[in-house]
Amino acid sequence: MTAMKLTTLRTAFSGRLHTEAHDMAPFLTDWRGKWTGRALAVAQPDTAQDVAAVLRWCHEHRVPVVPQGGNTGLSGGSTPDGTGQALVLSLTRLTRVRAVDTINNTLEVEAGVTLQEVQAAAEQANRLFPLSLAAQGTCTIGGNLASNAGGVQVLRWGNARELCLGLEVVTAEGEIWNGLRSLRKDNTGYDLRDLFIGSEGTLGIITAATLKLFPRPAGQAAAFVAVPSPAVAVELLQLAQLRLASSLTAFELMSDACITLVEKHVDAARLPLSERSPWYVLVEVSDPVSEAQAAAGLEGLLEQALEQELATDAALSSSLAQFRALWALREDISESQGAEGKTIKHDIALPISAIAGFVEATSREIEAQFDGVRLVVFGHLGDGNLHFNLSPAEDRLGKAHEAAFVALEAPVNRLVHDAVAAAGGSISAEHGLGVLRRDESARYKSAVELKLMRAIKAALDPLNLMNPGKVLPAHEDK
Amino acid sequence: MTAMKLTTLRTAFSGRLHTEAHDMAPFLTDWRGKWTGRALAVAQPDTAQDVAAVLRWCHEHRVPVVPQGGNTGLSGGSTPDGTGQALVLSLTRLTRVRAVDTINNTLEVEAGVTLQEVQAAAEQANRLFPLSLAAQGTCTIGGNLASNAGGVQVLRWGNARELCLGLEVVTAEGEIWNGLRSLRKDNTGYDLRDLFIGSEGTLGIITAATLKLFPRPAGQAAAFVAVPSPAVAVELLQLAQLRLASSLTAFELMSDACITLVEKHVDAARLPLSERSPWYVLVEVSDPVSEAQAAAGLEGLLEQALEQELATDAALSSSLAQFRALWALREDISESQGAEGKTIKHDIALPISAIAGFVEATSREIEAQFDGVRLVVFGHLGDGNLHFNLSPAEDRLGKAHEAAFVALEAPVNRLVHDAVAAAGGSISAEHGLGVLRRDESARYKSAVELKLMRAIKAALDPLNLMNPGKVLPAHEDK
Repeated sequence: MTAMKLTTLRTAFSGRLHTEAHDMAPFLTDWRGKWTGRALAVAQPDTAQDVAAVLRWCHEHRVPVVPQGGNTGLSGGSTPDGTGQALVLSLTRLTRVRAVDTINNTLEVEAGVTLQEVQAAAEQANRLFPLSLAAQGTCTIGGNLASNAGGVQVLRWGNARELCLGLEVVTAEGEIWNGLRSLRKDNTGYDLRDLFIGSEGTLGIITAATLKLFPRPAGQAAAFVAVPSPAVAVELLQLAQLRLASSLTAFELMSDACITLVEKHVDAARLPLSERSPWYVLVEVSDPVSEAQAAAGLEGLLEQALEQELATDAALSSSLAQFRALWALREDISESQGAEGKTIKHDIALPISAIAGFVEATSREIEAQFDGVRLVVFGHLGDGNLHFNLSPAEDRLGKAHEAAFVALEAPVNRLVHDAVAAAGGSISAEHGLGVLRRDESARYKSAVELKLMRAIKAALDPLNLMNPGKVLPAHEDK
Repeated sequence: MTAMKLTTLRTAFSGRLHTEAHDMAPFLTDWRGKWTGRALAVAQPDTAQDVAAVLRWCHEHRVPVVPQGGNTGLSGGSTPDGTGQALVLSLTRLTRVRAVDTINNTLEVEAGVTLQEVQAAAEQANRLFPLSLAAQGTCTIGGNLASNAGGVQVLRWGNARELCLGLEVVTAEGEIWNGLRSLRKDNTGYDLRDLFIGSEGTLGIITAATLKLFPRPAGQAAAFVAVPSPAVAVELLQLAQLRLASSLTAFELMSDACITLVEKHVDAARLPLSERSPWYVLVEVSDPVSEAQAAAGLEGLLEQALEQELATDAALSSSLAQFRALWALREDISESQGAEGKTIKHDIALPISAIAGFVEATSREIEAQFDGVRLVVFGHLGDGNLHFNLSPAEDRLGKAHEAAFVALEAPVNRLVHDAVAAAGGSISAEHGLGVLRRDESARYKSAVELKLMRAIKAALDPLNLMNPGKVLPAHEDK
């Protein structure tokens, strides 16, 4: 690629074009520093029309495009490869909230609006946009949709996919598809929306979305509940769903090892129960009428649970401060695990009926096969989604042991993912494939499924310019 | 196609193969008798493996395939064309309930199981499968998914799409894709499931599905509410959503003309209110704990609604018989309209904020432009989905006036659909495109959207053998 050609790009759209190494650097490494690549340039267009202009230029010059939102992904989906041939297309300057409709309960936003700003726009209209996850201050709604993000409220409200009614997408040829419908029902053809959602920028680039809003719950309550095992936690989940239906807005499982890590690394953290338990569940209830009614629903559940021995102890929040403190115990696990040292992580989903057996058998297998490791298991039990993670054992902390621990990653991944596949599960529940799980995923998918995915990719991106190398591995016979 | 070739098909799979006219006849006409076609033969395979064998045979011999479930569709999607070259592939012998998982709340069923049998299998497991529509005794779950069916519970539970976790699909080449996941989260690649759902058999044939189940509500209550206008009905909907959140399980609008038709054609029907109103709403509330609690929630809503003049009168069900009688008023509209004479129907969706204005302006426009017609407007207001129908005026009933009324269909369709398109709506909210709305839909879709749809069709069905002529019109430049 010559400098002359880049000049034609510079004049083709409004917005920024970075070509200097120091300007490009922040876009070439993911936020955790796991993947670093090179790029021809970094484009920051201002509008969907500009995105289309950039893509037409890329199409004409056969330049691969790596779309990027807040760059907070966990699977390396938004980092360019090392060839330096791709253009990074950052959507962060598409920041308009285009429309709010409080009667239809919809919000139209551009791709670069951060998740937190989306939540704030909903709140300003006295509505709830329920997607919620740790990176919300930085991640963008475009990236959330491109990766079908999950988080802590999926049990009640669904993934990003379920919260989206319409999309605006720029195709590989640089055309704008206006699919910004704000309808609950539309059976006029193929579901293009859901095809682009979760495709990680490999089929087209999301530039705007119509999102669903909901009335804000009037009150919430949370409880931190001690349970003897994942099996009992699953029984408690059944009871909670039966008694509370969709008032049940979160059901999070965590092992005592998780809470011990949080207590070690977060000053204010303390277990709200008098005795330790091998496992805990965080239950959240939301009510449209009042906080008292939310608390009453939760108390009723806990009473029955204690009576039926589905819980050994429980602490109920009785103030907003307590509510937040209980949630902090759950939300600080990931950072605390990072503070402890190197990590081996898995983002898996299983049928809920298979979870207890999986945790027991796989934990036993890991302990039998690997030395010097500690299980750090937590996650969204209500969705069947666990972060089945490992840290070094307490006597293997420190630099000296790091290499030995890191060497375990591949065989531990294999053991865990084989067990997940055998139980009919998913090896990437909410983090997507990117490059991290691309080959591993292909290993478990059937030839028919890979063929269907490749046919769709070839149909919408015949020149393989849209985030190439992500989601699908290159293959020989094509 | 020679008889010799059909002999090779007969031996290629187990199940029935009909080639005699009288055996084939029931499969060649839709249930309302609007479309009649011809076929080479009708195959009724017994298993997904047999479906695959049939499709491999069709692929080898370049024979088009028209998949068919209960044949209750409203858009002509499962009737063959008049050439007699296609094979009708009936799924009605794939009738196994393969698995029930009450902990994961999932049900795996084959495509030919009727919706009512699916509901019964759920009930037997003390669970709810919430999809519910008039044809449920005959329509099949495969057809429901292929057309993304809606119905009266979509407000709370979603369309067929939202109730499905996984699919088994036979591709155009006759390969079986096992996508029967029973997971709430799976971000490992393109959303093939949602691509096949709603594609009306034009991309592949659904042979089985994993469905979501829910706890059965402990109690329900319904109210028949008089409202002065659609605008006020929309305000009442806002209030209901705010107060009841997801306890609100149905919110159906109907004009007085609808109820008058039901009273005329159904003996037992009577208006449960002392005075007539131009519009009515049927509100249903479901509660996980008790019927009393459902009734209390509904009473609270009605009290506030009457106070705020969002309702002028209301009748609350106080027994199961009354609950059913209120629902019958709504459910009998369609049949009563049919009993009255010829009909002109529209299955439209709009942003809820646009509905009141649309109904007012479009009704006025129709009355100004067309003589001898009567508006029969009802539907799922909570989903923004109206059946904006017409019957002959009371003084234009009878055979003598039929031709004049039928001649209005095309211009009335055009007027209504133009208004829908202008308001950002959909001309087929829940009935699909089939052949009925195929060309009309293409008229309103952008060139980019049609190009994307055609690219996907060509990628998955390059020989155009899967239900050809449905969903997408043939086009010249391809």
